[in-house]
Amino acid sequence: MRMVDIIMKKRGGEALLEEEIRWMIGEYTRGEIPDYQMSAFLMAVYFQGMTDEETAILTDAMAGSGERLDLSQLPGVKVDKHSTGGVGDKTTMVVAPIAAACGCTVAKMSGRGLGHTGGTVDKLESIPGTRADLSKEEFLEVVARTGIAVTGQSGNLAPADKKLYALRDVTATVDSVPLIAASIMSKKLAAGSDCIVLDVKTGSGAFMKTVEDSVSLAEKMVAIGVHSGKKIAALITDMDVPLGYQIGNTLEVEEAVRTLSGEGPRDLTDVCLALASQLLHLAGHGEIDFCRQEAQEAIRSGAALKKLADMIEAQGGDPDYIYHPEKLGRAPFTAELAAEKSGYIERMDALDIGVAASLLGAGRETKDSAIDPLAGIILSKKTGDAVKKGETIATLLTSDESRLEAAKKKLAEAVIIGAAAPRKHPLIYARVTEQGIE
Amino acid sequence: MRMVDIIMKKRGGEALLEEEIRWMIGEYTRGEIPDYQMSAFLMAVYFQGMTDEETAILTDAMAGSGERLDLSQLPGVKVDKHSTGGVGDKTTMVVAPIAAACGCTVAKMSGRGLGHTGGTVDKLESIPGTRADLSKEEFLEVVARTGIAVTGQSGNLAPADKKLYALRDVTATVDSVPLIAASIMSKKLAAGSDCIVLDVKTGSGAFMKTVEDSVSLAEKMVAIGVHSGKKIAALITDMDVPLGYQIGNTLEVEEAVRTLSGEGPRDLTDVCLALASQLLHLAGHGEIDFCRQEAQEAIRSGAALKKLADMIEAQGGDPDYIYHPEKLGRAPFTAELAAEKSGYIERMDALDIGVAASLLGAGRETKDSAIDPLAGIILSKKTGDAVKKGETIATLLTSDESRLEAAKKKLAEAVIIGAAAPRKHPLIYARVTEQGIE
Repeated sequence: MRMVDIIMKKRGGEALLEEEIRWMIGEYTRGEIPDYQMSAFLMAVYFQGMTDEETAILTDAMAGSGERLDLSQLPGVKVDKHSTGGVGDKTTMVVAPIAAACGCTVAKMSGRGLGHTGGTVDKLESIPGTRADLSKEEFLEVVARTGIAVTGQSGNLAPADKKLYALRDVTATVDSVPLIAASIMSKKLAAGSDCIVLDVKTGSGAFMKTVEDSVSLAEKMVAIGVHSGKKIAALITDMDVPLGYQIGNTLEVEEAVRTLSGEGPRDLTDVCLALASQLLHLAGHGEIDFCRQEAQEAIRSGAALKKLADMIEAQGGDPDYIYHPEKLGRAPFTAELAAEKSGYIERMDALDIGVAASLLGAGRETKDSAIDPLAGIILSKKTGDAVKKGETIATLLTSDESRLEAAKKKLAEAVIIGAAAPRKHPLIYARVTEQGIE
Repeated sequence: MRMVDIIMKKRGGEALLEEEIRWMIGEYTRGEIPDYQMSAFLMAVYFQGMTDEETAILTDAMAGSGERLDLSQLPGVKVDKHSTGGVGDKTTMVVAPIAAACGCTVAKMSGRGLGHTGGTVDKLESIPGTRADLSKEEFLEVVARTGIAVTGQSGNLAPADKKLYALRDVTATVDSVPLIAASIMSKKLAAGSDCIVLDVKTGSGAFMKTVEDSVSLAEKMVAIGVHSGKKIAALITDMDVPLGYQIGNTLEVEEAVRTLSGEGPRDLTDVCLALASQLLHLAGHGEIDFCRQEAQEAIRSGAALKKLADMIEAQGGDPDYIYHPEKLGRAPFTAELAAEKSGYIERMDALDIGVAASLLGAGRETKDSAIDPLAGIILSKKTGDAVKKGETIATLLTSDESRLEAAKKKLAEAVIIGAAAPRKHPLIYARVTEQGIE
């Protein structure tokens, strides 16, 4: 087999054979196929796409390029969730404990934040002492003991994806639906769970800007999961506006804890309950409505919050921060964004707000930047709310006073006040399952 | 500027700015842009194309990536010709001497053969003693002294093209019209002539298989030349059937000499006169018909043949081989392809015949293969000719007897005998000038 022939075939719009895809991923992972051939191939995929069959094989080959986590020795149904990333998205810290409290086994690998989006690993690490760099053995031990663990991606999980992603990033081949789907799902398959719920964000703060693109990506990922024998479903949820009212690492832990205590904001609570009930449904707990009640009960009883506290303790943190999140402290420097006129919040751009939070120190500009765990934004108003001139729309927090000005300027750009209340966006646009879209 | 942004722009179908193209070629030539970004860019160009303006700038940037030959100290109008390559294409050895005999200055860089197509450099080197590896100084000195020189491409002419071509070859990005046009024309521009005639071959033995594609390529190249202030025109000529009756290095020298002596085959003579008269016209010698008479007179008087002999002598060969090409000798081993039935030659596939000649030793499989100068094929019949069963269609010649069988088998595949005479193809399909297609 020659890589140039595979490139030419894809360039011409033909579907590749299983052996061609497996050969290509194997040789590329071993360094036998050079980056300059792979990047030409990736660009050809950008233009010609891949069938569901091709994408599923590509994903499986990527998942098999390194270690596959073996969860078979753990009891119960192993469940996983994945979000395509957004601003204020702390759903993992709510959904995973709910699922664990309802008897599922949660062994979740998570990522760090980059650019304007946050990452669960950073949020967990903002709780003093908490480690999200567990070895495979530690990870499996925590899951076995508490039924739940969330850690950063281990070294040799889907190395082909790591290599391909780094290449796509510098060759303008990131935004291809089959490649995105294969990248996400290869890690999910290698991580070994039985049931997977996907939260595909849509809107300005999401990777996918339109509902159509989000549905395409969700369909592709569900098809891959089904092809690999997984129970899988995806929800398309709004990311035009940040989720919840708090953006930033400790601020999001605080809001997640509040939500697990039954006192979270409406939008965040709704999305978390939808994801959790979908996951319980996939795990065989019954109809969605029944699963929703089960999830609500896990919150009401305090079982879900306890699961999060147990996990934090097992991962080296003090569970007291979960029961008393105010102990995490507040950043010393603040500024307020006030309404310049009376009216209604017409738009609150999630992307700009994410960038503003990052400017405050909540995110990282490059992979090696340090993070300010206390930095972030607390929204007082959200899209659709009425405001009076001078009223506080948002509070900016940071440990570095010099960051306030630029962040406030960016945040001001994110907010548009109009004369009338805008049309409300749905919070959950669609559900994509093996059976189709609803 | 960032290469990833340039790739993304091209991927989206946008035209690049002049400074973007020049920056990209400069950095790539210096090794500052890695191959993996360039190959993704090239694949994006494959799908999105380039405007005439972009292609002209790309070409000029490539031409300027190394040394530009300065021919300004040479007297007369400097002319050049280029063929996109074919089987039995010995036109350079006829057209260049005619142009020189008519007072033009010919300083031509030529290539080696690869795959099924021949190259003028190999043909010249098949004349004992003749060098086609002149240094820049030797080259200019020969041109100054004799008015004509043909040599291999010098080391530092358009290095960006050399690097890009090697990359395109292994990334399935060769067959993109703007990239082919820029590759050819960058070398022509760097070679410094004022007038350029292009022979764009079309058909099975050519790089461009259809007249439409050949016209597109010709238009792109003419646009580039005009943009750079050159007098330029292209002829689209047939390469479904080999040109002339002899294929192979010394065999082609022999046929070129016969053509320069006024005794060449009709098709080869016609194409050479069309190219030569077009070149003289561009050089300001008057109307095409007048220029054709001038070219014919250069043959009739023996002046053109003498120019070839002078050039061979100046490049180290014995001019006696030109006046007595039979001295070049014949290969010791031969085989004949006889007609299996009576009828008409319906098809003689130039590509297959080129491959058969290469199998005999006339061409090279890889860049470093050695060539058998005497190997080749002499056709006795061509498409449209009547044949009787058992009559010789072609003779195969080689210095290595073991090569005969496979070559004969390939040659047999190339020839189809039918019951009726086939429709005749035009020899010259079109002329492309600054004014358009005629």
